[in-house]
Amino acid sequence: MSPTVILVEPQLGENIGFTARAMMNCGLTSLRLVKPRDGWPNPAAQAAAAGADKVIESAEVFKTVESAIEDLRRIFAATARRREQIKRVLTPRSVALELRSSLNLADGLLFGPERSGLDNDAVALADAVIEVPLNPDFSSLSLPQAVLIVAYEWRMAGMSAENEMIVSNDAMPASKAELHSLFARLESTLDDSGFFHVAEKRPITVRNIRNIFQRAGLTGQEVRTLQGIVTSLRRYQG
Amino acid sequence: MSPTVILVEPQLGENIGFTARAMMNCGLTSLRLVKPRDGWPNPAAQAAAAGADKVIESAEVFKTVESAIEDLRRIFAATARRREQIKRVLTPRSVALELRSSLNLADGLLFGPERSGLDNDAVALADAVIEVPLNPDFSSLSLPQAVLIVAYEWRMAGMSAENEMIVSNDAMPASKAELHSLFARLESTLDDSGFFHVAEKRPITVRNIRNIFQRAGLTGQEVRTLQGIVTSLRRYQG
Repeated sequence: MSPTVILVEPQLGENIGFTARAMMNCGLTSLRLVKPRDGWPNPAAQAAAAGADKVIESAEVFKTVESAIEDLRRIFAATARRREQIKRVLTPRSVALELRSSLNLADGLLFGPERSGLDNDAVALADAVIEVPLNPDFSSLSLPQAVLIVAYEWRMAGMSAENEMIVSNDAMPASKAELHSLFARLESTLDDSGFFHVAEKRPITVRNIRNIFQRAGLTGQEVRTLQGIVTSLRRYQG
Repeated sequence: MSPTVILVEPQLGENIGFTARAMMNCGLTSLRLVKPRDGWPNPAAQAAAAGADKVIESAEVFKTVESAIEDLRRIFAATARRREQIKRVLTPRSVALELRSSLNLADGLLFGPERSGLDNDAVALADAVIEVPLNPDFSSLSLPQAVLIVAYEWRMAGMSAENEMIVSNDAMPASKAELHSLFARLESTLDDSGFFHVAEKRPITVRNIRNIFQRAGLTGQEVRTLQGIVTSLRRYQG
């Protein structure tokens, strides 16, 4: 069950659209709006959603925060400034871990109006507060950016550790036989061209050259390309 | 040393401004622009930066990607789609770990034009590719959102584990003496009011009630408020 995003009194339709897009980027689809300033549906929201129509079309509108959350079981409220209220304050990453916990409750993520953020009464309805640990000298996020970060952490928390790790391209690395055949051809060409004019230094120079190509993680195709380069240069010399 | 963000042929001034804002949110300040479509300086960028003027004012403009990265040592290129090129593909989280590694190189983060993304020649200049692991059915991020996620991960990777964890409010929890005094007053009031009409059930009911308040993590002030409520109800009954 994925969490519901609740925008309280959003001002700009464009921001509702960008929010829908950020949600869909991260696999969230349930959007609720409490008293959107410019009414609903809102053409500016639809335009900005850029393809996240499913989220916009299924958005539900409520008159109060209480009614928008009454069927939910845990509420996390995003706020930019620390409150007097005694409540747990979580980073988006910690919130994501709680959302992904085995409890699998009906969760809501509450975001306030662009200008002022959530008021104290709305924050009081939440189980915990979300605070994004940004640059303290410049911490104001736009509404869709705040939603994006929380939704992104939710998505990341749901990925297996394997998926989070480095992804490698499909291409197979060259076999060592292909690579050594390249080395042999290159080194004999360099021998013939007089490249190793100080004989004692040949072994270390060869090792250095081999390391360059070894480190590059070449594919079979790339080794064949390099073989072609050596052949071509050899011909040019001759 | 914080990484430099390089926008290649950005189209909308607004997106340059939003990018500057996302950078500053996360503590990045060095911005380079390669052939911005509408020239530079750009009033739309300044308006959208919403206070991130420092980033906009110090932005440098270049004619080619090569010249924009020549003094840098590692380049990570953001792309939305998988390339034929043989290159490591990293998530923003993995990139952030590399950026924060002790190597502390002069790093660049390369982002392409809004419509088309980076072309293959630009990607070829990069040491690795950044791919945000989004919903595969809806993976298109806006330019400033892509920058935000990478910059946010850079910021998160730089925070100590302590800071990433749950932040607690400053308020002191109530002393156990305060809490037990509340329990005593509440329970004696309930005794007097005849609440425990089945005597055998009193112990378990008392434990349940105590657990409710125990779990709430009350502050001293909150305990005093509850004491006041009990006193007030007691008076009302009498």
